[in-house]
Amino acid sequence: MPAVNALTATSKGSATRDSIIERAYEIARFSGVEGLSIGPLAHAVGMSKSGVFAHFGSREDLQLAVIESAADRFVDAVFKPALSRPRGLPRLRAIMDNWFEWIRSNPGSCVLMGAVSEYDDRPGPLRDLVVLNEQRWRDMLCRTVQLAIEAGHLRDGDARQYVFELYAFPLAVHHEKGLFGYEQARPRGEAAVARWLSAHSP
Amino acid sequence: MPAVNALTATSKGSATRDSIIERAYEIARFSGVEGLSIGPLAHAVGMSKSGVFAHFGSREDLQLAVIESAADRFVDAVFKPALSRPRGLPRLRAIMDNWFEWIRSNPGSCVLMGAVSEYDDRPGPLRDLVVLNEQRWRDMLCRTVQLAIEAGHLRDGDARQYVFELYAFPLAVHHEKGLFGYEQARPRGEAAVARWLSAHSP
Repeated sequence: MPAVNALTATSKGSATRDSIIERAYEIARFSGVEGLSIGPLAHAVGMSKSGVFAHFGSREDLQLAVIESAADRFVDAVFKPALSRPRGLPRLRAIMDNWFEWIRSNPGSCVLMGAVSEYDDRPGPLRDLVVLNEQRWRDMLCRTVQLAIEAGHLRDGDARQYVFELYAFPLAVHHEKGLFGYEQARPRGEAAVARWLSAHSP
Repeated sequence: MPAVNALTATSKGSATRDSIIERAYEIARFSGVEGLSIGPLAHAVGMSKSGVFAHFGSREDLQLAVIESAADRFVDAVFKPALSRPRGLPRLRAIMDNWFEWIRSNPGSCVLMGAVSEYDDRPGPLRDLVVLNEQRWRDMLCRTVQLAIEAGHLRDGDARQYVFELYAFPLAVHHEKGLFGYEQARPRGEAAVARWLSAHSP
């Protein structure tokens, strides 16, 4: 049954690949995506360097996979659960709440926010992926804001500008978390969002 | 005239120290404060390593001096020129404009914002200085906001919350500058501040 064997081998390979990414993601939380290197990572997952290279052709491929994995986790934690909420303000509020919760639940730093400062001034595939992810996230937020405008929950206006302003508050919570602690930062972020929504209700 | 000689020697020493900090600041703009090391810096200023060590007892002392210098530059560029504007909204607006201009005029990254992500999770004198600077800057903003409330230019409210929200916009401009370019980010930041001020006018 060569087909089944091939399938088993592939799914085993995929599970190994996933577990390498998982470990790399944990390292990147504290050392950044730039802090990843194949040698120490291979040691951490109990493999040889060539074993890790069999799954990722290069250090850059591994870094790209870690950023993609971080973006998937973010969307799974922040956006997808909010889709079960009604369109408009309930969904927008759920996204902002989930986002603040994401910041809390990521010890160390957020790999995605870290990747922005690591790669925004370094042209190449890593920067391209970071910019693409950030653009996609803004597009998802923009669609959510537009639905809230269409539902009559937000005053009509420039949805991209709304997204810029709403994005600024979790960014500030992330910034203040490291300086003054999450417990002080989160209520500020929540109040900022609540005050913003109230200023923009029709 | 030993007193005069001593004075000359001191002021020469101080000028050398300043020029080392100046060069280190330029390096930190692109490599971060963590990217500083005495060897390459000594080479860059044409001195021996021991010559640089004569001015800074350790790498950490040099890093502390660079962060202090960055904070001085920031206050000189953003806060001090605004003091010539009348209290209240004119001064607050001038601060926000100067802040956006500071982001533009710092190629590479802002050393101060970089230092927050470098040190917020590393207890020690560098983190302490970063937190102190950030707290001082919030205190200056808070006083400015309070004066604007007292002048009747802003609605009464929690001045610390106002500072959190206003701080979020330059932070977002800094974040978006690296991703999508300053030319796209600055008008968003300016519009955010203008809209915030209008929402908070009495």
